[in-house]
Amino acid sequence: MKINSKSNQSVLISGFHSVEKSLILRPDLILKIFVSKSDNKRYIRISSLAKKYNISLELFDSKNLNNIVGHSKHQGFAAEISYPMFFSEKDIRSILNNNNTSRVLILDSIQDPRNLGACLRSALAFEFDAVLINKDGSAPINEYVFKTSVGAILNLNIFYVANLSRSISSLKEINYWVLGLDSNGEGSIFSEKFSPKTAVVLGSEGSGIRRLIKENCDHLIKIPISKKLESLNISVAAGITMYEIKKQHIN
Amino acid sequence: MKINSKSNQSVLISGFHSVEKSLILRPDLILKIFVSKSDNKRYIRISSLAKKYNISLELFDSKNLNNIVGHSKHQGFAAEISYPMFFSEKDIRSILNNNNTSRVLILDSIQDPRNLGACLRSALAFEFDAVLINKDGSAPINEYVFKTSVGAILNLNIFYVANLSRSISSLKEINYWVLGLDSNGEGSIFSEKFSPKTAVVLGSEGSGIRRLIKENCDHLIKIPISKKLESLNISVAAGITMYEIKKQHIN
Repeated sequence: MKINSKSNQSVLISGFHSVEKSLILRPDLILKIFVSKSDNKRYIRISSLAKKYNISLELFDSKNLNNIVGHSKHQGFAAEISYPMFFSEKDIRSILNNNNTSRVLILDSIQDPRNLGACLRSALAFEFDAVLINKDGSAPINEYVFKTSVGAILNLNIFYVANLSRSISSLKEINYWVLGLDSNGEGSIFSEKFSPKTAVVLGSEGSGIRRLIKENCDHLIKIPISKKLESLNISVAAGITMYEIKKQHIN
Repeated sequence: MKINSKSNQSVLISGFHSVEKSLILRPDLILKIFVSKSDNKRYIRISSLAKKYNISLELFDSKNLNNIVGHSKHQGFAAEISYPMFFSEKDIRSILNNNNTSRVLILDSIQDPRNLGACLRSALAFEFDAVLINKDGSAPINEYVFKTSVGAILNLNIFYVANLSRSISSLKEINYWVLGLDSNGEGSIFSEKFSPKTAVVLGSEGSGIRRLIKENCDHLIKIPISKKLESLNISVAAGITMYEIKKQHIN
């Protein structure tokens, strides 16, 4: 389910794969495409897609494109994209109350845009129905998030919420079991049996899930690791947890 | 098992946590510490560790430290570390032939130092006995690898090998079952039963495992993901695979 209306906010993305992926997934969100003209296959590919969807295409020389994008790693392609309309707290009940089996990822204050993007990529990979992100205190959804999510951001139900704790309560009311991933968790992912409707919370890179959010979880679990390390990389931990939930849901 | 001799090569690392971790894990490898003097707890912590291990400590002002390190994100701390002595192909039999249960990670031509570092961090987390890396064609083991591995590189048996295919043959001779992770693999990680001595190969971000290496694997498996995406992030895929092997080995 997607709301297709254009919003006021937009983001500039660049690179052949990012622009191509956006044209394939959500041409409705693309406001404008910027290219440096050439006769190679990539240029032909992008310009024909732009024509197909009736999107304006502006030609620049490579140097001017550097100025527009703010760096030189654009490979000759950039696009201005309006943000997909994100959902908010009030949409939780209407969108997530219909499935018998459902998976939701909740990200509490992730700081690094690349980690955020990698978490979104894995959420799409393991067919999560929604991702909840706290609007204040998380990394902004910028070009780096788009890039590391390899377009997943255009294909997920993302809830951008003001109050994560209240949103968790809403999920509980519609029968989600809410787990928190925490290095001091009592449970272990090695033996955890996931409920058909599972939401899992991951906290920030440095300090984990905030206390009040943690207290609102039904249960805290950990990924057991060697004592020689304090933690896994956050996007690796998220990937492992989503993998395990998906695996149990299909078995 | 570690060989403690100093090698000729060294790498400059920076940041409080990286320097502290190195002092705790491998003080024998630290050639010199550079700090910008202050009276905070971190400075006292590092200088007392340096004293304990009789490592020379040089004071600079912050600006000069920028010049030495090449950037300004050092938090006032840097260290020159000699590479741990890596193992080579000829050591495989002597080091890896003794365990009944064993896990080995094989990285074929990983290009991004941060991905390489994240894979090493997960290998330590899931108690892998060794990591094999092809010497030519992989990202260099530099400051970024050290940083994203959060010190794991100082705590792992790393084999830096000239010929990955020949190394795989050596592992097979001592009864490792060698799996390749491949999006076209016949097997699925959801149902795979891992052998007590398992080695798993992951290929580069763009193009996967090289053909000849792939042909030398006993079996190819995939992580099933949504058709809306082509692949997972390489360090996420590595983390999931190592997690699943570890989980089966302890159950």
